[in-house]
Amino acid sequence: MPLRHIRIVGSGLIGTSIGLGLVQRGVQVTMVDSDALSQKLARDLVQSSSTEVPDLILLATPIASIRSALESERNTSVKLGFMDISSVKTKVKVDVTASGLPTTNFLPTHPMAGREVGGAESARADLFQGRPWIVDSEGVDSNLVGAGRELIEILGAHPIEMKSAEHDQAVALVSHLPQLVASLLAGQLSDAKDDWLDLAGAGLRDTVRIAGSNPKLWREIISSNSEAIKPLLERLIADCSALLVDLKDEENVARVISRGNEGRAKIPGKHGGKAREYTYLPIVIEDKPGQLAALFDECASAKVNVEDLSIEHSPGQFTGLITLALSESDSEKLSDHLRKKNWSVHAARSSLQ
Amino acid sequence: MPLRHIRIVGSGLIGTSIGLGLVQRGVQVTMVDSDALSQKLARDLVQSSSTEVPDLILLATPIASIRSALESERNTSVKLGFMDISSVKTKVKVDVTASGLPTTNFLPTHPMAGREVGGAESARADLFQGRPWIVDSEGVDSNLVGAGRELIEILGAHPIEMKSAEHDQAVALVSHLPQLVASLLAGQLSDAKDDWLDLAGAGLRDTVRIAGSNPKLWREIISSNSEAIKPLLERLIADCSALLVDLKDEENVARVISRGNEGRAKIPGKHGGKAREYTYLPIVIEDKPGQLAALFDECASAKVNVEDLSIEHSPGQFTGLITLALSESDSEKLSDHLRKKNWSVHAARSSLQ
Repeated sequence: MPLRHIRIVGSGLIGTSIGLGLVQRGVQVTMVDSDALSQKLARDLVQSSSTEVPDLILLATPIASIRSALESERNTSVKLGFMDISSVKTKVKVDVTASGLPTTNFLPTHPMAGREVGGAESARADLFQGRPWIVDSEGVDSNLVGAGRELIEILGAHPIEMKSAEHDQAVALVSHLPQLVASLLAGQLSDAKDDWLDLAGAGLRDTVRIAGSNPKLWREIISSNSEAIKPLLERLIADCSALLVDLKDEENVARVISRGNEGRAKIPGKHGGKAREYTYLPIVIEDKPGQLAALFDECASAKVNVEDLSIEHSPGQFTGLITLALSESDSEKLSDHLRKKNWSVHAARSSLQ
Repeated sequence: MPLRHIRIVGSGLIGTSIGLGLVQRGVQVTMVDSDALSQKLARDLVQSSSTEVPDLILLATPIASIRSALESERNTSVKLGFMDISSVKTKVKVDVTASGLPTTNFLPTHPMAGREVGGAESARADLFQGRPWIVDSEGVDSNLVGAGRELIEILGAHPIEMKSAEHDQAVALVSHLPQLVASLLAGQLSDAKDDWLDLAGAGLRDTVRIAGSNPKLWREIISSNSEAIKPLLERLIADCSALLVDLKDEENVARVISRGNEGRAKIPGKHGGKAREYTYLPIVIEDKPGQLAALFDECASAKVNVEDLSIEHSPGQFTGLITLALSESDSEKLSDHLRKKNWSVHAARSSLQ
């Protein structure tokens, strides 16, 4: 049964992005928010509404507001029931039970869709494209489950079935622990001398990138999932303390670095397959508009597919370094092609840094 | 006095890159390595040699080999003296004193040139372009200091004067601690379920990128600088333990995230200025060769300067998402330009993720 009308309660980044994505695919959407101004903005952005009874009510509020949202929506007519999208699932199930709603009418889900912050104005219809979206359908009405999965697929995401308790452990490891580690590491820089930070390279910058995250969002996520995060932080402290016992012992240090190599190699690449090995081709270009276009014209005429790239350049210096990520065969093809045309191509490398 | 001839002992990534860079700028170079095969490879790559007495002997060996390299080079004629490039400086000065060489004839330096691994075959003449290069000239003969600084500038790097002890503390903070933290975090993934890792996003991938580093290289760096690293790791453990006292306390969590925000904001941007705020403009394109070229043609005709970009696409899906980093005014200009030409431009954002 195709979805006709979804009522979305909560007009932050996720709720509004879902609204935009659904409307783009012909589903009617009604945006609701307890804050009148936020509701108006969301309705301006997601230009849709319907008097028809909604198929389901999607709760896209902060975790702390799930229970009050359920209470205020108690008398809204709905065909199938509720679904949520919050980052922590066990706590939400407890709140649903406490609200008196039969759990069979509530589908807990969680889209793994990046960590952007910024509310409705940052919403994008394509936010969920190609991303995993966890669904815990245990004990939930099968029509509600079907509608929830359909909604996920309409948005271009792929539903992954996982129990709430396991979900919370998984995100504690792959999302919440990295957030805390990046924040704790970046915190060590807060009283450092500026001269020292001038020595920072791409390694430090990447390691602390997510330390830029929004404290308002994360205080709630971490505290709501503290049970799952605690043993992970304890294990990290134990590993850290074991390393500290003898930092002069090269074997001890090498074990930590090697175990890190193994852990990192387990992360799938961004295309969902296991981490892919690209070949990195450095090309020095003049740092001015038009040079990138000329380079990509060459890529097109050599018929190679650029998988990723990075740009490093210094103003005041008339060159920039572009590094293209390519398959090994495309790298060879492009390297030959560019050399013939007198581009400044350097030796291809197997790692970016 | 222009440099005429540099003798480089050690033909790994750094030594060979220095050799390539110097030869490209007309300086004669003799590559030397205690391993005959490595020496042959380095000499094939850096096609230069001279019978003239070298201006200086540059030691580009692992830290543990500095002393034996000094001993084997004891009888080589040299005009000004020695210079090294290793990642830890206090230990090297101790080894120099122990070798009997007057410290006035040894210039300790350290190029901050990324963390690539891979030996001579990964060498690049432009490796040091725009990078800081630490020099500790305290008590060193002024002609040797002048020659060392000239060498650094020839390679496009900028010399920064810093005492060895302070250097070791600075790199402990901005390079060695992040390496250990990334490795320890990635180590937590080594026994995780594959299903869980399928949920990983760009945040985790960036945080553990440098966990891919070479254990052989890092075991030596960490153990040689253990004195400076130890108090930093201890402080990190203390901060981590303080957080653990009450993970359910939102104020406690928010303090850690906010302090991370502050620390991250102190890191200068890649252009050497303080971290720059870009505007990020997402554009959906067809995922096929030629589309990037067409997009950059538009950038050139709109006369905007692309500062950085990322590509996210899934094979089997005929679209790709390009995110361009631009100044705010260039973002507005390009967004208008592309919309008029019917490109699929999405709303600009103030952060990448």
